[in-house]
Order: sequence, then structure tokens, then C-alpha cells
Amino acid sequence: MFTQELHKTAARIDRIIRNDDFPDRILPAYLRDAVIDYPSRGGKRLRPAILLWSCGLLGGKPASAKFAAAAVEIYHNWTLVHDDIIDNDKMRRGRPSAHFMIQKIAMRKFKMKPEDALAYGKNFAILAGDIQQGWAADMLLKSVRAGVSPELTIHLSRQLHELVNRQLISGEALDIEMPLHKFENLTPSKIETMLEMKTGVLLRYCAETGAIIGLGSAKFANDSRIRKLGEFASIAGKAFQLKDDWLGIFGNEKKFGKPIGSDLTDRKPTLLIYLTWKYSDRNGRKRLSNLLGRPSYSAKELELVRKMVRESGAEAEVLQKAGNLANSAKRILLDFPDNKYRRLLLELADFLTGREY
Amino acid sequence: MFTQELHKTAARIDRIIRNDDFPDRILPAYLRDAVIDYPSRGGKRLRPAILLWSCGLLGGKPASAKFAAAAVEIYHNWTLVHDDIIDNDKMRRGRPSAHFMIQKIAMRKFKMKPEDALAYGKNFAILAGDIQQGWAADMLLKSVRAGVSPELTIHLSRQLHELVNRQLISGEALDIEMPLHKFENLTPSKIETMLEMKTGVLLRYCAETGAIIGLGSAKFANDSRIRKLGEFASIAGKAFQLKDDWLGIFGNEKKFGKPIGSDLTDRKPTLLIYLTWKYSDRNGRKRLSNLLGRPSYSAKELELVRKMVRESGAEAEVLQKAGNLANSAKRILLDFPDNKYRRLLLELADFLTGREY
Repeated sequence: MFTQELHKTAARIDRIIRNDDFPDRILPAYLRDAVIDYPSRGGKRLRPAILLWSCGLLGGKPASAKFAAAAVEIYHNWTLVHDDIIDNDKMRRGRPSAHFMIQKIAMRKFKMKPEDALAYGKNFAILAGDIQQGWAADMLLKSVRAGVSPELTIHLSRQLHELVNRQLISGEALDIEMPLHKFENLTPSKIETMLEMKTGVLLRYCAETGAIIGLGSAKFANDSRIRKLGEFASIAGKAFQLKDDWLGIFGNEKKFGKPIGSDLTDRKPTLLIYLTWKYSDRNGRKRLSNLLGRPSYSAKELELVRKMVRESGAEAEVLQKAGNLANSAKRILLDFPDNKYRRLLLELADFLTGREY
Repeated sequence: MFTQELHKTAARIDRIIRNDDFPDRILPAYLRDAVIDYPSRGGKRLRPAILLWSCGLLGGKPASAKFAAAAVEIYHNWTLVHDDIIDNDKMRRGRPSAHFMIQKIAMRKFKMKPEDALAYGKNFAILAGDIQQGWAADMLLKSVRAGVSPELTIHLSRQLHELVNRQLISGEALDIEMPLHKFENLTPSKIETMLEMKTGVLLRYCAETGAIIGLGSAKFANDSRIRKLGEFASIAGKAFQLKDDWLGIFGNEKKFGKPIGSDLTDRKPTLLIYLTWKYSDRNGRKRLSNLLGRPSYSAKELELVRKMVRESGAEAEVLQKAGNLANSAKRILLDFPDNKYRRLLLELADFLTGREY
């Protein structure tokens, strides 16, 4: 049932995004295509699902939250477009990232040299993400048409800008900055704060927005169920992120969708790598540092890293933490009445931490 | 009176921006500083002035439009931050541009090499602009607090995203693309469309938003005075832009604020340069093409360009066009009752095209 419902949600969101006329008049045409591209590439649409199901859980009609659900998906996508420029990521959901798509167009259309075309691609990808941020804000404001009151729509829009925009981007900034710090100056709580900001805040917003629309009035903004559902999504998201970090070293490249070891290349102090460093002796720390920052990792080098992560105890600690977080998240849901949407959200928590993708 | 009123408006906008707590919790601190930086650098605050005075002209209290006025200023500034990255501009209002400011911080704080620090500065400047776009949207939504109805606030916010975001960024994209096209494939109307999108649309939005708030109800959105004031601002903006292009070649570097000839360096087909090309014979076109794209221009080289622009008749045509546009803009205002705000807007039109800055 979960998989079917997730597909149904994804199809609904696809339809709203595809039929929206916001991108129609963007010029030139390849900028318009870039604006539509990421939001149309599919993906699991977990954020809309959390939003719609949280709405349903509290007795609201998910249809009234449909524009908000499409908005968070578009919002998520603009952050990906800019992230990919910043991280210089080549792939996104199995296809070239936005700036590489536009690089190719510039080489073909304007006969540009590859490096000039890449700079051009990055410039246009900046603009594509900029338009998408406006598109997301506009989509959310359409909620009035789905029966959400103007007062509530303004409340939700302000939350999007004040909480999500500010904190998510601060989280991204801390993430970029973190590899520049010595391990000695990091702490697990600094790493977890960054994670909470970069991915937790938007997930929390999805659940809270669904809950608020479900309750149907801005007056309910202080209802404790809203905060609880927000906690659920944030905690489940953290569990997902920890599992994702583990998959980034122990996973299967095909299922994971990006190169195994890319966090090592980027010297990204994930909790997993940080704890490995912390639990190693002086020689171990030296060996770990030497293994970080390579452009790519052979099977043998990866095995060396994996051995250190495993034997330090970091692997067990992180996996256990992810499991505990998933359980905490699910426990929060048990305070809610049992219905279809509670079952879907419970399965979602398992899905986020369980699968080997 | 005009200058005093413009200063008063600027001071009011400065105060709103400076006292707003939106940037407070941005991390790390130098990202927060970058978010505050451009909007605090002063400038003429012409956009807020157009908005507030248009509100007053139609009998509204400018105080009710104060958040909208601060919003358009912040909005303008985020586009400048991203423009400066894209154009690789080093200066903005007499100080280093955002990405160069952060480059310096990265060199000092993280001992980065200059080229790595510049890439880091660009990445953080992308994020700073991203936050500013959210800040602007949030500021506009605060209008409810100043007495603008929720319905009208949503209407104005949607206009900001649907008209301004989409068209302004499309205009920026066309501006980046234009130097890649041959003169043969350009037309004056293509160049003017780009100008209208890149700078005209936001100015039109300022006037229309002031007018709508002045009239006080979304029901007035079809009142012909709104469209007329929008036309005024858009036409005055185009006159300003044509004069600005002229100053970019004939102006005084100190007053102009950026290097004279930088449009030539960028091979930017301003209407002035395009017409020079169009009115030149085959040899002249060749000479002009040879003069474009140099990293900088000596007084002698500049004089060669100026001579061509003047003798082709392009200079006279563009200056006359700017003057005609300024007059058309002012004529629109004469349909409105004579009051303090009409006088201010009339002076603004002269200010935009008259001065030698």
C-alpha cells in the first residue's frame, strides 16, 4: 500500500508541476527547460508525501494541501540546482546536473570551448535556481485557491522564508565550510546542527505545514500536534541522513546513484567519518587523514576506509543511532489516532532508514 | 525638495532594513554579513521612492507601503549580488562586490589560495543572494502589519514572483546571451525587450504596487491609473538605461562609478553600439568589431570609439530617444492631479535622465 500511495502522490505532484504555467514565458528557451528540468525528473517526492499525509492524519483533505505539496518539491529542487553548482556535482538523478546540461547546449549552440561553456552553464544554472525559488513561493501562494485562508497562506509563506530559507541555506553554508575545519575543532553536535539545518528544517516544515492545513486555521498554529509531527519528520530525516552517510561508504554504487566515496573525496566530516577519527589513535588518525581527499577510490582503498570505520566502532554507533532515531520518530506517531495516514507515515519512517538504495 | 525627500525616503528604508531581524540567525557570521551588506550600502533607493510616491499620488498613506518599499530594495539587491558573480564585476557602489568580499575573508580565515578563495566567495555569494530573495519575499508579506489586506498582500506577492522574478531573470539571461550573437542577428527591438525585462519590469512593479496600495484594495487592480503609473516608471527606466549606456562610453569614470568602456570590454550590444554598427559601412563595422572586447581602454582608444559613435549618428539618435522617453514619461503624470507626489515623480524622471553621474 505504501509504495502505491507514494506513487500516486508522486503522480499527483508531477501533474501539478507539469501543468503549471509559471515557466511558460521564461526566455531563452533553454533557461525555461532548465527551470522545468529538475522538478520533472521524478524522484521519490518524499516531501510532498510527508506534507499531504500529515494533512490527512489530522483530518484535513489532502487536496487542500496540493499546492503547498508541489511548492515544497519545487523548493527542494532549487536548492539542489544551486548545491550542484557549489559542489560541482556532475550527476543528479541519473542525468547530468543543471550546469552540465547547459554547458552542452552552449557548446552546441554557440560553439563555446568546454571551459567557457561550463562557466556559462553555471551562470545559467544560478538563474534557473533563482527562478525556481520564485516559482515555489508562487505555488505556495496558490493555496488560497485550494481553500486555505489568505491569513493562513501568508503565515505558511512567511514560515517558508523565515525558517526554511534562512536555516536551510545556513546549513548548506556550514556544510561547505566544515571540511575547512580541523577534526579537533568539530563536535558531534556541530555536525548534527548542520544536518538539522540543511535537511531537517524543510522536512519539519513539510509535516508542520500539512498539519496546519489539516487543522484548517492559523489559530491552531500552537496546537501541540503540529510540533509533534514536525519532530517526527525532522528525526526521521536525521535517521535517513545518517543511513545515507553510511551508504556513501558501504553502499552499492548503482543503487546509491552517486560514486561511493565521494564524501571522502570532498573531505566531508560526516558523523561516521568524524567518529572514526575520534575513536582512532594517533596513527589511525594519520592514516585516515591520508585517505581523505583523493579524486576517486579503488575497491582496495575503499576497503581500507571501511575497515577503519568498522573497527573503530563508528559504524556500529552510527547505525544504532539511525535505528534509534527511526524508532523515536515512529513512537511520536503512536500518540496519533490509527488511520490510513498514520500507517503511511510509519512505513515512510522505515523506508527512509531501511532500504539499501 | 526632491533631493531632501529622496534622502528622507532612503533613510526610512535604511531604518526598516537595518532593524529587521530576518538576517539575525544566519550562519556562519560572514554569510549573515554578506546578506546585510548590499542592502546596507545605501544607493539612491529609487525603487522604494517610486513605490512610496506612487502610493501617495493616489491618496494612500506611504506608511502603509513601507514594507513593500523595503522589499523591492532588497529584491533589487539580491539580483545585483548574483549579477556581479555572473558578470565577474569587482566593484559595487564603490566597494568590492559580494564574492570578492568573501574571497578576502576566506583567504584570511582559512588561509586559502586566491583562486580557491574566489570560488569559495562565489559559492557563498550565490547563497547570500538566495537568502536575500527569501528576505525580500518575507518583507513584502509583512505588509499585512501595515494595514494592507491579506488578499491584496497575496496579490502583490504573486505579482512579484510571476512578473518580476520570471521576467527580470529572463532579461538578465538574454543580456548574458546577447554578446554571443552576431550584430546581423540583432534588432533594436530585441535589445529594447531585454532592457524592458531586465530593468523595466521591476520599476513598473514598484509604481503599480505603490498605486495598488494607494488605492487600497485588490478590486482596484484594473483601475487604469495603476497601469499608467506602471508605464511611467517603465518608460522613465528605459530613458535612464539609454542615458546610462551613453555615460558608459562618454561619461566621467569617477561620477559613473565603474570603468568607462566596460560595456565594450564585455562586447555588450547596447542600443548605442548596435546603432553605431548598423550605421557604419563595411570598413567601419570591421573597425568597430576590432575595438570591442579589449580588457581595458586607453583614452586614445576610447576617443576612437566615441568618434565612431558620434559620426555614425548613433549618439544623437540615442540621446534624443532618451529625451523623448523622459518627456513621454512625464506626460503620463500630467493626467494625475497636481500634488506633492506628482511633483516628486516629475523631478525623478528628470533626475534619471538628466544628471551626469
